[in-house]
Amino acid sequence: MPSQSRRSFLQIATAGTLAAAVAAPRLPAAEAATAGGAFGAQVTPTPLPFDPKHLNSLSEKLLQSHWENNYVGAVKALNTVRGKLAQALADANTPAYVYNGLKREQLIRTGSVVLHDLYFANLGGSGAAGADLRAKIAASFGSFDIWESEFRKIGQGLGGGTGWVVLGFNRRLRLLENYWMADHASGPVDVAPVLVMDMYEHAFAMDYGAAAAKYIDAFFTNIQWEAVQKRLEQGSALMRG
Amino acid sequence: MPSQSRRSFLQIATAGTLAAAVAAPRLPAAEAATAGGAFGAQVTPTPLPFDPKHLNSLSEKLLQSHWENNYVGAVKALNTVRGKLAQALADANTPAYVYNGLKREQLIRTGSVVLHDLYFANLGGSGAAGADLRAKIAASFGSFDIWESEFRKIGQGLGGGTGWVVLGFNRRLRLLENYWMADHASGPVDVAPVLVMDMYEHAFAMDYGAAAAKYIDAFFTNIQWEAVQKRLEQGSALMRG
Amino acid sequence: MPSQSRRSFLQIATAGTLAAAVAAPRLPAAEAATAGGAFGAQVTPTPLPFDPKHLNSLSEKLLQSHWENNYVGAVKALNTVRGKLAQALADANTPAYVYNGLKREQLIRTGSVVLHDLYFANLGGSGAAGADLRAKIAASFGSFDIWESEFRKIGQGLGGGTGWVVLGFNRRLRLLENYWMADHASGPVDVAPVLVMDMYEHAFAMDYGAAAAKYIDAFFTNIQWEAVQKRLEQGSALMRG
Amino acid sequence: MPSQSRRSFLQIATAGTLAAAVAAPRLPAAEAATAGGAFGAQVTPTPLPFDPKHLNSLSEKLLQSHWENNYVGAVKALNTVRGKLAQALADANTPAYVYNGLKREQLIRTGSVVLHDLYFANLGGSGAAGADLRAKIAASFGSFDIWESEFRKIGQGLGGGTGWVVLGFNRRLRLLENYWMADHASGPVDVAPVLVMDMYEHAFAMDYGAAAAKYIDAFFTNIQWEAVQKRLEQGSALMRG
Repeated sequence: MPSQSRRSFLQIATAGTLAAAVAAPRLPAAEAATAGGAFGAQVTPTPLPFDPKHLNSLSEKLLQSHWENNYVGAVKALNTVRGKLAQALADANTPAYVYNGLKREQLIRTGSVVLHDLYFANLGGSGAAGADLRAKIAASFGSFDIWESEFRKIGQGLGGGTGWVVLGFNRRLRLLENYWMADHASGPVDVAPVLVMDMYEHAFAMDYGAAAAKYIDAFFTNIQWEAVQKRLEQGSALMRG
Repeated sequence: MPSQSRRSFLQIATAGTLAAAVAAPRLPAAEAATAGGAFGAQVTPTPLPFDPKHLNSLSEKLLQSHWENNYVGAVKALNTVRGKLAQALADANTPAYVYNGLKREQLIRTGSVVLHDLYFANLGGSGAAGADLRAKIAASFGSFDIWESEFRKIGQGLGGGTGWVVLGFNRRLRLLENYWMADHASGPVDVAPVLVMDMYEHAFAMDYGAAAAKYIDAFFTNIQWEAVQKRLEQGSALMRG
Repeated sequence: MPSQSRRSFLQIATAGTLAAAVAAPRLPAAEAATAGGAFGAQVTPTPLPFDPKHLNSLSEKLLQSHWENNYVGAVKALNTVRGKLAQALADANTPAYVYNGLKREQLIRTGSVVLHDLYFANLGGSGAAGADLRAKIAASFGSFDIWESEFRKIGQGLGGGTGWVVLGFNRRLRLLENYWMADHASGPVDVAPVLVMDMYEHAFAMDYGAAAAKYIDAFFTNIQWEAVQKRLEQGSALMRG
Repeated sequence: MPSQSRRSFLQIATAGTLAAAVAAPRLPAAEAATAGGAFGAQVTPTPLPFDPKHLNSLSEKLLQSHWENNYVGAVKALNTVRGKLAQALADANTPAYVYNGLKREQLIRTGSVVLHDLYFANLGGSGAAGADLRAKIAASFGSFDIWESEFRKIGQGLGGGTGWVVLGFNRRLRLLENYWMADHASGPVDVAPVLVMDMYEHAFAMDYGAAAAKYIDAFFTNIQWEAVQKRLEQGSALMRG
């Protein structure tokens, strides 16, 4: 993985301890990124890609707690669950539904890790979308304003509960759409995430209490639209000829 | 989209009727695939990519019903929901949580449409995986057998309930993993699906009653591994420099 | 528990083996029903309360498989999960989110056991509701027909997915209502279930394939309305002065 | 409903406007509590049963916001959804899966209303459980400490996500158990709730940020055990001969 993409991807390090039954394969250097494999990979948290002192209307305290407790906490939990999966699979007496309790935890933590990583990486910007990107979004939604009104409306509906709002490019349907996701384990298959907004209460309650709409306003003023544009270009280009 | 990939992607047709507020943008030919946009796109079902008379241990009756009722039913529902979304968004009085009831339906139907499309497209084969693919899977899971035992175990745990088992390449974690998904709306973000097994009871009850393990055996004898290999190559190549 | 209610409640037997940390308390005879306690109780399946050969339009094969595989399977899983919970709680190193994976399994199996028990107990009847009960239902829903049309509509919406439809008396809101439940773990708190319809595909696919509406017709012709009336009387009387 | 139970139950008022098709039946005085029926009932929020200035380690600001935004918000949403259900059912063109989107909202809001009502009603106490109640809990769990350790562990597991922890008497299994509930729509059927702890982040983030364990400590020092004891007596007495 080239150094310039370090920030945008999670780093995978080899696990120290692996269950005997699924010892990590020796991999050539080119495959180092996946060392550890399905049962042994250990995810390392990505540092905050901006200075949390300088975001608009989102406090350093909130951002630091969000990163440290919710994101890093999810990374640790994911790493732990992988080890437990290896043990449980090696034991032929593990009932399938008990095993799936762990697989569900893996799905939840994977979602939390990946979505938080994307969330922080699309913050720290000016909040002003470039003309090109606005035109692309408008082409899918009728207008940029219609897109924004739907994205915000989904967020407000989640505000009383939890979840994520994701603008993503659906590689199968070849559509740029907004998605409603009630928790970390929800989501559409084979969608390239383009803009990600966390609506769990830990993303705003410290600063805004229950005023989810004010948090959404604050979120929009901090969007890193350059990162968003790059994701859309990569994500939507992939499936073309 | 080149003609040879017609089978593996859904066809999107322009909707006949669109809510005034989100009239479909005029698009140049190159963008025809996304005509209709986020609110107007109408999905057309992909025909079964194999002759349902000739699968091993899965009856024509079951496969035909599965395709017609569950897959085509999901396509129709998705197309209907899109129209309802456009109407509801255009009405400023729609409460956000009512709007999100529709967005949830959209997520469920999108999952059902895309996963069924992938499921049928990875059936109709010999059930024999090539040496290359076996090696790639083994590199991630320790061995091909460990992969298969986990994939089957997840399926058995879902057998009493519902859901999907997906082998997929996680583009963010750069890992090939098996995923547990309890329903159409569950799933990991930005994962390229490689092998998809339907564990909803409609996929097997007509032939096997509650004997989910026998259905899993039958599924394995029909896997179209060539399609699986192609998906893995495309999906895992995407994020490399 | 008086002998005449044997059929309507699950029998709880003392577990043979209990984790040392949560050994079953010695209980006086009057408490025998809860012997084993939260971690040790072992549920015994209730036999089918009707002869499966003689239901209208639901085959013996389907009913027998439903009882044996889905209901008894859930009972066994619930008993197993209780033992695993005791072990996991006794181990101070169990992460809370791993423990909750087991608690979730407990919730799912508890729902499956209890709802199946109620489902079978409200089958085997004539399908003809008495005038009294019709009047009570009408008083809450406007008319008996409105009630029936909503109950059926929920069932049809679940037909493509999974879940339960429950007519229940909400002891907190003091309302007789229909509930939509997408899976065994969904449900309203403190509701006395009155009429329960299984919409998991295992309840009908063997006989009806994907034709959920035909199954709903069949279900209605077999309702044991006397059992339903008794539940309503008991459930709604409880919270009155 | 006798005046002394006003605090523990929700008040149901007749809806002002009802869809024509489901006009509220005229009810005798004794049935006034359910006036409005399944489609017309309007819930009125219960005032906080304690002075929010005087709880231990839970701020007035937090408690006031929780009551006003999350609880009252849920009451309003539930009342709105009932009206939308009546309209949607009266329209024969409503697809069943769109109708079920509203039924799901009803289930979520019903859970939120009832559980919040119970939560506030089991706060405002001394935090000291009486000997009788401790003995009853110990009889089910092995010891009071085992009960408390499980209740807290479930809470910590939910801390990173959302949900409720409920100690309840399962009327079907005749067991006093702790339940894990990931959201307002989750829950076991026919369980009398005895002690309810809110683990949504709105219950603690304003005061404790992500420190869920500290909130659980604070919760325990405020438990109104007299209310808990009364619920257990009522709930567990009901199904006995």
